[in-house]
Amino acid sequence: MIERGFAAEKLSRAEVDELRERSRLCRGDILKMTTLASSGHPGGSMSTVDIAVLVYAKANIDPRNPCMPGRDYVLVSHGHVSPAVYSSLARTGFFDPAAAIAGYRLAGSLFEGHIEHQIPGVEWITGNLGQGLSAGCGLSLAHRLHGRKGRTFVLMSDGEQAKGQIAEARRFAVKYGLTDLTVVIDFNELQISGSIHDVMPNNIAGCFEADGWAVIRADGHDFQTLYSALRSAVNDGKPSVVIAKTVMGKGVSFMENVVEYHGSAVSREQLAKALSELGIPNDMDRFEKARKEFRPPGIEVRSCPIETNLAVSQGSPVLYPADASTDNRSAFGAALLDVAKASAQKPGSAPFAVFDCDLSVSVKTAKFGSEFPRNFFQAGVQEHNAATVAGALSSKGVACFFADFGVFGVDETYNQHRLNDINWANLKVVCTHVGIDVGEDGKTHHCLDYVGAMRNIFGFNVVVPADPNQTDRAIRAIAGKPGCWLVAMGRSKTPVVKKADGTPFFDKEYAFEYGKADWLREGFDCVIATMGSLVPRAIAAADKLKEKGVKAGVLNVPCPKQLDPDAMRKAAEAGVIFSYEDHNVHTGLGSCIADYILENSLPASLVKLGVRHYAPSGRTEDLYREMGLSTEHLVEKVLETLRT
Amino acid sequence: MIERGFAAEKLSRAEVDELRERSRLCRGDILKMTTLASSGHPGGSMSTVDIAVLVYAKANIDPRNPCMPGRDYVLVSHGHVSPAVYSSLARTGFFDPAAAIAGYRLAGSLFEGHIEHQIPGVEWITGNLGQGLSAGCGLSLAHRLHGRKGRTFVLMSDGEQAKGQIAEARRFAVKYGLTDLTVVIDFNELQISGSIHDVMPNNIAGCFEADGWAVIRADGHDFQTLYSALRSAVNDGKPSVVIAKTVMGKGVSFMENVVEYHGSAVSREQLAKALSELGIPNDMDRFEKARKEFRPPGIEVRSCPIETNLAVSQGSPVLYPADASTDNRSAFGAALLDVAKASAQKPGSAPFAVFDCDLSVSVKTAKFGSEFPRNFFQAGVQEHNAATVAGALSSKGVACFFADFGVFGVDETYNQHRLNDINWANLKVVCTHVGIDVGEDGKTHHCLDYVGAMRNIFGFNVVVPADPNQTDRAIRAIAGKPGCWLVAMGRSKTPVVKKADGTPFFDKEYAFEYGKADWLREGFDCVIATMGSLVPRAIAAADKLKEKGVKAGVLNVPCPKQLDPDAMRKAAEAGVIFSYEDHNVHTGLGSCIADYILENSLPASLVKLGVRHYAPSGRTEDLYREMGLSTEHLVEKVLETLRT
Repeated sequence: MIERGFAAEKLSRAEVDELRERSRLCRGDILKMTTLASSGHPGGSMSTVDIAVLVYAKANIDPRNPCMPGRDYVLVSHGHVSPAVYSSLARTGFFDPAAAIAGYRLAGSLFEGHIEHQIPGVEWITGNLGQGLSAGCGLSLAHRLHGRKGRTFVLMSDGEQAKGQIAEARRFAVKYGLTDLTVVIDFNELQISGSIHDVMPNNIAGCFEADGWAVIRADGHDFQTLYSALRSAVNDGKPSVVIAKTVMGKGVSFMENVVEYHGSAVSREQLAKALSELGIPNDMDRFEKARKEFRPPGIEVRSCPIETNLAVSQGSPVLYPADASTDNRSAFGAALLDVAKASAQKPGSAPFAVFDCDLSVSVKTAKFGSEFPRNFFQAGVQEHNAATVAGALSSKGVACFFADFGVFGVDETYNQHRLNDINWANLKVVCTHVGIDVGEDGKTHHCLDYVGAMRNIFGFNVVVPADPNQTDRAIRAIAGKPGCWLVAMGRSKTPVVKKADGTPFFDKEYAFEYGKADWLREGFDCVIATMGSLVPRAIAAADKLKEKGVKAGVLNVPCPKQLDPDAMRKAAEAGVIFSYEDHNVHTGLGSCIADYILENSLPASLVKLGVRHYAPSGRTEDLYREMGLSTEHLVEKVLETLRT
Repeated sequence: MIERGFAAEKLSRAEVDELRERSRLCRGDILKMTTLASSGHPGGSMSTVDIAVLVYAKANIDPRNPCMPGRDYVLVSHGHVSPAVYSSLARTGFFDPAAAIAGYRLAGSLFEGHIEHQIPGVEWITGNLGQGLSAGCGLSLAHRLHGRKGRTFVLMSDGEQAKGQIAEARRFAVKYGLTDLTVVIDFNELQISGSIHDVMPNNIAGCFEADGWAVIRADGHDFQTLYSALRSAVNDGKPSVVIAKTVMGKGVSFMENVVEYHGSAVSREQLAKALSELGIPNDMDRFEKARKEFRPPGIEVRSCPIETNLAVSQGSPVLYPADASTDNRSAFGAALLDVAKASAQKPGSAPFAVFDCDLSVSVKTAKFGSEFPRNFFQAGVQEHNAATVAGALSSKGVACFFADFGVFGVDETYNQHRLNDINWANLKVVCTHVGIDVGEDGKTHHCLDYVGAMRNIFGFNVVVPADPNQTDRAIRAIAGKPGCWLVAMGRSKTPVVKKADGTPFFDKEYAFEYGKADWLREGFDCVIATMGSLVPRAIAAADKLKEKGVKAGVLNVPCPKQLDPDAMRKAAEAGVIFSYEDHNVHTGLGSCIADYILENSLPASLVKLGVRHYAPSGRTEDLYREMGLSTEHLVEKVLETLRT
């Protein structure tokens, strides 16, 4: 029996014996599962496994209740050592090791090649290296914002230390005093291409120290010294890293320090020899049989509940009057603040967290920051880290917003969001500067793919509101919603969208509903489908066309990834749809509509207006003119098309 | 007259006087242009300008010949200080300062908000912070690979030092001994949100030192000490950083250390006061007039020639026989090596560079690495840096390949490639592990957006070859071509595509032509449009359909971003096209075809088969079955569709 926690000064002899026995069994499991799958990463698994066995034994977790509230979080950044993780979780009592051995890397089994968070005990899916420490910062903040005392352990590899995102995460942890964060690096000094000192020399200890971390060294295969190091790390009042010296392939004579076993399983013959060295019976026949029959032993999936709707108050919607002079980003900032305030006043509400990368005044989260300094995280110019911290935090019951310019919140952090989505995060990304509406900052800052990029990420919902009223209602509606969301808006002031009678279109009765499009103007000579900054210009064009005898409908499509079937059917009846967007013309709203028309065999033709090449720097109006996107261009295009 | 170079121990008094005068004039220019544009970043420009004036005065560059071969490269990473860059280039003699003042941030003028490389003297467009040092590494390598002695200077801001990509670039510079690289940091200690020490505490000197750089401190407004620091940096035989203490808004009393002027221009009244402090006449009327008339004074655009076709030998194409058992990535590796060898033997050929991120054995560049160690750059697990280094290097006459898995070469480095494209780079990105064909590594490693992401980047050409023969010919064809290219391929072995007579389809006569599709099988009951890993399965499906009396054509579409008009017209005649792809079904080949059908009013319907959600981990065949992409699924779908 091993006592959890770090109260004892040393491990008892019985504990050491038990840990050794677990590790021995794990090594057998690792070799069996990788050889059975004929793929996987045994070498690093054998070097990490003693660390994993010890951390899973001592952390405040409960194998019978893997979702125990207030538990310590254990996150493994180098997800390719899944055999070490699965076997050590199994041998700690989380599930039957036979399930992992027989099902490893088999389609239809949970035991994927990189660790999968539906496996009890796995908190975060990793596999793309260098993001785990950021995710660990997010989990650590979850403890803090929920007022809990839990610790966060992040196991990492040495090769991945080269990734810059880790430096960002180190600084973030120090700035925010994440003293309950403990990193353990599996320092086996080998990576795929050879010695880490040859592949990319990296002063790991020096870099952690320069960034203000406590650095502790240990023997990663000696439980007593490893425990002492962990105990010291846990108690030293600083974010701490244990650099644990290990041996790749540890425990099997012919595998030790052989880099080829990083990513290759041993043969059946070698396996027999290895198991015999480890004193483990060779029972591969039974696993092979289960695998061949595609019937690996199952496990009870006890992945912790993905938060559905969070307890978040929607506050009091703001009705911007017809003559309001403001921009969508200010409406976002005001709605966010109001929702957070209303929630703070209601006991039992989810805590909020807002992340900024040195742009809070522009992206309008500065007021939230002043009002809720404990819930506002200034990450500086470290977008990769901010996106992952926020994503991980959002997966643990916190209403989490990451606001940034489009080129940073979409383009720079694209892969971080892909991984957030894979992890069933619930992050709200708000990008306040999208399109050439960004203007004078020029092409490096014109985000032209806020739909086109996010269309690739299966779970991300995308909302492009038309005006301050729709922005207000959308932000309130999604604040507590599950899943990842992008809300994208232009930079400039934009008029309140009005009904024909001059009153606000998105009025007191309006409620935002994902996937619903809005008929801003009726008219079926043709339909102009638009979104975001170009909405007022589409309306102006419809007005001008009316003067010329053409009745053009204007359809606002704030949810281009989920088109509105009723509206699309109705639009198609006009025969010709014009898509009109401040976005790359090939990948945005027009492309979504093209797909929809063909998938649903709608009898409509499509004419696309959008951005066809990088735009220069200049005032928004000048750029729209230069790029063929002014109201006049649209009118001309409609007339020309209807003429032919 | 200022003498170029760093031979003299000190600046002469006359030189100091001249530099001071230039800086004074520059400060006037900076204020005029930002106030005229009512936007821009005067604060940081005033703190950087003395550094810029000195570097442009001393570096081995020639204002009358900005493209001088062998010149020093001066790269400014914090592109928002464009007023400092434009004015100091102008006052060094590159062009008329009036052009920059009147045209600043005006649509139709070259003087964009962030520095633009069509401006003589600007080597690389920046604006998204944190990438400049990587680009500087690329420029430094260009000198080395061309056998030239030039230096590379990288000017940076202090706030951007938080970006992790900079840590990656530091390590790369040390590993590759880029001793001719000198960084100067404008250390004004302020960023948008306030003091850099509050926004994100960062031990800048300590981090550079930990990574092995020489750190030199200087007063960034005192030319004599700044020159000494630069001279020492240039001569110390290490990559060196000068941390130059500066004052934001330096030179105008009411602007100094006022953070608001980071991103805001001063008013007309304040400008008058500031110009008077600087002793500069207020001649704003003339610039305002020119700007209003949209006729800013022009400059002679002398941006250095973008390399068109590089001198690269295509080597000897390999014809893989009908029964070859190999994969596309091996064919890539062999073609790359052959092209490089053939070029190396031919005097006057462009040098090659191949970048790896610890995957050379998998991505098949290892043999190139052994054969050409001086041209092979092992960047370790530092993809952001590798992508930017390679991009910048590719813009300077080097045949440059960056090979990686899809999730790293496309997803993780998406924004780096966007900026490479904006910079007219000529980078060849080869992603060897795309689609669920990646198999057991699971969803974190399944790149499902290699078309969908790159469709957003205007200039990127995308090639998805069907088999080893097409891969061979495509790699040889593009090696010397201008522009950015992605060549994407699956991981698994794949059969040679054969004609009906059993001989290789891509035979000795075949030459790769961008935008051309291939009719692998004729048949016009319907057409299956496909690419990459699914090509052999599409052919198998067509064979099975034939047995059932359905004549299905099979169209290989290796260039989904540029569809083949003839092939598409012919395919449309079949009435129904099936797109069949190992890619996100919403954003890949099917979506490109949908767009094309509607843009060209083709009379065809479209049925899309592709990946509809994240796939698990497993063998490729099992995954295709599980995701509805097996040959049998395709046959069934065709029959079902034609039946209705």
